[in-house]
Amino acid sequence: MKKQYLLAPGPTPVPPRVLQAMSMPIIHHRAPAYREVFEEVREGLKYLFQTQQEVLLFAASGTGAMEGAVANLFSPGDKVITVNGGKFGERWGQIANTYGLKVLTIDVPWGQAVEPRQIADLLAANSDIRGVFIQASETSTGVMHPVREIAELVRDREDTIFVVDAVTGTGVFALPMDEWGLDVVVTGSQKALMLPPGLAFAALSEKAWRFNETSTLPRYYFDFAKERKNAIKGQNAYTPAVSLVVGLREVLAMIRAEGLENVFARHERLATATRAGVQAIGLALFAPESPSNAVTAVCAPEGIDGQDVVKTLRTAYGVTIAGGQDQAKGKIFRLAHLGYVDDLDVITGLGALEMALMDLGYDLKERSAVRAAQMILKQK
Amino acid sequence: MKKQYLLAPGPTPVPPRVLQAMSMPIIHHRAPAYREVFEEVREGLKYLFQTQQEVLLFAASGTGAMEGAVANLFSPGDKVITVNGGKFGERWGQIANTYGLKVLTIDVPWGQAVEPRQIADLLAANSDIRGVFIQASETSTGVMHPVREIAELVRDREDTIFVVDAVTGTGVFALPMDEWGLDVVVTGSQKALMLPPGLAFAALSEKAWRFNETSTLPRYYFDFAKERKNAIKGQNAYTPAVSLVVGLREVLAMIRAEGLENVFARHERLATATRAGVQAIGLALFAPESPSNAVTAVCAPEGIDGQDVVKTLRTAYGVTIAGGQDQAKGKIFRLAHLGYVDDLDVITGLGALEMALMDLGYDLKERSAVRAAQMILKQK
Repeated sequence: MKKQYLLAPGPTPVPPRVLQAMSMPIIHHRAPAYREVFEEVREGLKYLFQTQQEVLLFAASGTGAMEGAVANLFSPGDKVITVNGGKFGERWGQIANTYGLKVLTIDVPWGQAVEPRQIADLLAANSDIRGVFIQASETSTGVMHPVREIAELVRDREDTIFVVDAVTGTGVFALPMDEWGLDVVVTGSQKALMLPPGLAFAALSEKAWRFNETSTLPRYYFDFAKERKNAIKGQNAYTPAVSLVVGLREVLAMIRAEGLENVFARHERLATATRAGVQAIGLALFAPESPSNAVTAVCAPEGIDGQDVVKTLRTAYGVTIAGGQDQAKGKIFRLAHLGYVDDLDVITGLGALEMALMDLGYDLKERSAVRAAQMILKQK
Repeated sequence: MKKQYLLAPGPTPVPPRVLQAMSMPIIHHRAPAYREVFEEVREGLKYLFQTQQEVLLFAASGTGAMEGAVANLFSPGDKVITVNGGKFGERWGQIANTYGLKVLTIDVPWGQAVEPRQIADLLAANSDIRGVFIQASETSTGVMHPVREIAELVRDREDTIFVVDAVTGTGVFALPMDEWGLDVVVTGSQKALMLPPGLAFAALSEKAWRFNETSTLPRYYFDFAKERKNAIKGQNAYTPAVSLVVGLREVLAMIRAEGLENVFARHERLATATRAGVQAIGLALFAPESPSNAVTAVCAPEGIDGQDVVKTLRTAYGVTIAGGQDQAKGKIFRLAHLGYVDDLDVITGLGALEMALMDLGYDLKERSAVRAAQMILKQK
């Protein structure tokens, strides 16, 4: 017998009541029973995104909605800014290049956030920037980028929109779309939304919808205007992932019951405890200055490969976390604390981490990650 | 209490063991546990598609794979043939137009199949045709198109590929990809694959992969080459719809256990019985000459609106079937018999239909759809 624990930054654990809802017999997506589910989901998503706009829903992973944000809003040759400070920032650049946009890249060392000033300078030097792309939370490095500050820079520019990949941001920390003036917010189901992967979401501001009217890039499956037209009528343009939408209704009800502010506070508490824990045993944070509350990237101690930490946790303790990707491979490991997670998941993760590190010959001395985390968690 | 019966041409009922498998705790898509599932799925899909080629898998509905087939294989200005004889044939044309292809459309009256001669004539008159697009089964009209005959016409043309939407064909009737020389076959999860919607599939011949090398259209999420490169290494390019893939393993095991030939024979039997049943009570088939074994489109009797048949079945008997779409709306209704369906599902459907028709004032006289179907079903 080996129990399994999922503490990776997506997919995240799915609550039993959601698994149960999704295992009910399938309903037809044009029948009234689905329409009822979908109406509830539409309302719940507006609450989650903190917007009055329609939140569009696609059968896809988050990358699909990212591609949609490019293909629906821009035209070949449009000049845009992307921030390459991790795997997902790099992805914005790849998608924009694929569609023939002119990409100005701000390279940021992995583990650091972009400085708003860097964006401001580029915007000042280029009056024709059509879009600024960012990750609210760069999952590959555990960095939170300064979304609110960048939004301020773009807000009053009529011909520039601000596009936010919030895949590990939505439902983790505050990203009030309407209040902050975020023009596009995209996310996925398998992170703080506590669902299996397979749903992607996108919401657009009025300004972004105006961009949509003049965009000439090809799109069909991820046609935002077509999807909105259908959503308003209570249906989807193409066959939706019915069982995941049924699960989504449960999840949104759970989030509403807990309250968005409490959801954010919980993630803040778990992240703070995790960071305190790993630092207490002498490990360094990979993103100490602007850490995301979704996932904590930890530098592997000297002489120990980060991939071995991941492997030992999985094989010896049944705990799945994430390693580093690309240039960070081997150098870091990532402990996630988003979605269906609570205080004792942090204790589980840190307890297992301590044991794995001991297996790998790391000297804990008298230090305890668990104790440091407990002291934070008990403050609530 | 009102029991619910799903007899629509997608989504179709999901077998209990599949629902159960999908309700297990989620696994991480980069962990060995997923890799094991995915390896089994890759083999099973090759068996299902009757191909040695890799069958690619996307978190999307079938339309996503259709779009991928255009965006990965063609270039702006490429001349292609589509057959507009229903809603999905029309969709091939829409997607091709979206991507700037030059579309030659063969208009076929709804309810009829295209004649291979029509394709042959267009091919003869245009040496530069790059692609021929068809539906194996046009779900909106219940028509089966002559896939094998069209494949023969395209097979020896080095610069033309044959693209088959098999969304309601795969797993319903024989479409041996390699043997017939089909260049692209796409399908979805929520039809004969007995899964919830949310997975799309595409397989390409060697000829089609050569087209991929020269295609200049933009694609990112549905990047076939990238997906194949990853699949060969036992993983997916982007986060897959894990729970659906876990369900897919069960479904493919069920199909293997039944045997593909037996699966086809079952669909043939159920379709034959359904057609005999509705004709026995004086109703006309909408596609009498080339009916698909996936779904039977039935002409509403004079004086009765097809939508009322659908509505009565749902509200009075808990049976969900499909109505007509677009130009066929009100004129037909569609009884599906694909996926997780067996003899008594046909009896259930026809029995409920008889009752609904009586409610709507249709005179059954001494005729019985159920009896006519029973006589066919008992022959097995």
